[in-house]
Amino acid sequence: MSKRAALLLAPGFEEAEAFITLDILSRLGIQVTTVACHAQNQVISYHGVVTVADVLLEALSTTWFDAIVIPGGPEGTVNLAASLAVSAFIQRHDEANKIIAPICSAAARVLAGNQLLKGRRYTCSGELWMQHSDGEYVMKDVVEDGNLISGRGLGVAFDFAFQLALKLTGKAGAADFQAEHIYYDRWRSQGLK
Amino acid sequence: MSKRAALLLAPGFEEAEAFITLDILSRLGIQVTTVACHAQNQVISYHGVVTVADVLLEALSTTWFDAIVIPGGPEGTVNLAASLAVSAFIQRHDEANKIIAPICSAAARVLAGNQLLKGRRYTCSGELWMQHSDGEYVMKDVVEDGNLISGRGLGVAFDFAFQLALKLTGKAGAADFQAEHIYYDRWRSQGLK
Repeated sequence: MSKRAALLLAPGFEEAEAFITLDILSRLGIQVTTVACHAQNQVISYHGVVTVADVLLEALSTTWFDAIVIPGGPEGTVNLAASLAVSAFIQRHDEANKIIAPICSAAARVLAGNQLLKGRRYTCSGELWMQHSDGEYVMKDVVEDGNLISGRGLGVAFDFAFQLALKLTGKAGAADFQAEHIYYDRWRSQGLK
Repeated sequence: MSKRAALLLAPGFEEAEAFITLDILSRLGIQVTTVACHAQNQVISYHGVVTVADVLLEALSTTWFDAIVIPGGPEGTVNLAASLAVSAFIQRHDEANKIIAPICSAAARVLAGNQLLKGRRYTCSGELWMQHSDGEYVMKDVVEDGNLISGRGLGVAFDFAFQLALKLTGKAGAADFQAEHIYYDRWRSQGLK
């Protein structure tokens, strides 16, 4: 059965981080569900893209995913961080050892800001890590610590997405093939030569 | 006045190519309008993202943009190529020397397939160029020839978007700042050291 990922969307989400990740996961056979983390399915991104999400978060109280993807976006992560339903959804999956995958400001704002990092190593954009005591910030493009995989920001979103897809599927050959197929020369499963 | 770009969306459009370009252009102060190139504003992408475009193409018969962005996607470019309205919209802007910016399969399918390249140098994905006699294919990530700027595919979409933004604004410093700000280390206005 194919793996399933939930992509959390709140108003102001970073559209390219969200849809690069959805795109690469989809190309590698992972089923991605877009989840609206507010009162309606329609969600407007950081730069004004209007998206209609597949489902409302409130409809997923007993649904499980293999991974939770949390995109950045200045307002997007403020909105996600302020939602008790989002924190509960992430915490439930984290405690069941599902993959938690924040990028850009998400690890700091949504996870550290709600004490959900629990001391794990992570990366995030800018100097947001200085505002939080939870977790151990590492200045790298992509950081893995157990079931947590974090990406630094938009410009490394492909690397983050490929690494996440590899973690979910274990299929290094398929991931390498796709990276080459789309002319992305910055990532390979075994690192670059 | 800020520059304006139209992003052409037809069913099956490559979501990450479209929204990376929208994102980078927006970050550099260019106003991007999403244009639905079929009968309704709602357009579904290659991997199932549901988007509500700002406007229908048919409403733009007398509107001008500084650039026309044409994303890829296997079905997306087949749909765009089959539309006489899309070809007329592109041709009108091309004849007025506005920037025409296809990525991935778009240059071959939408432009060469409708004799709109007029012998210019371009790049595109895969071997699609072999099916067309119009234009001169160049195997590079991003190719500029006059008002035509083309990108090879998804994995070089950031490079394509930054180069297009630079061409539209002429602001090399701002483009370099953004590339560094988002941790994209593959593109700088003067090339990489």
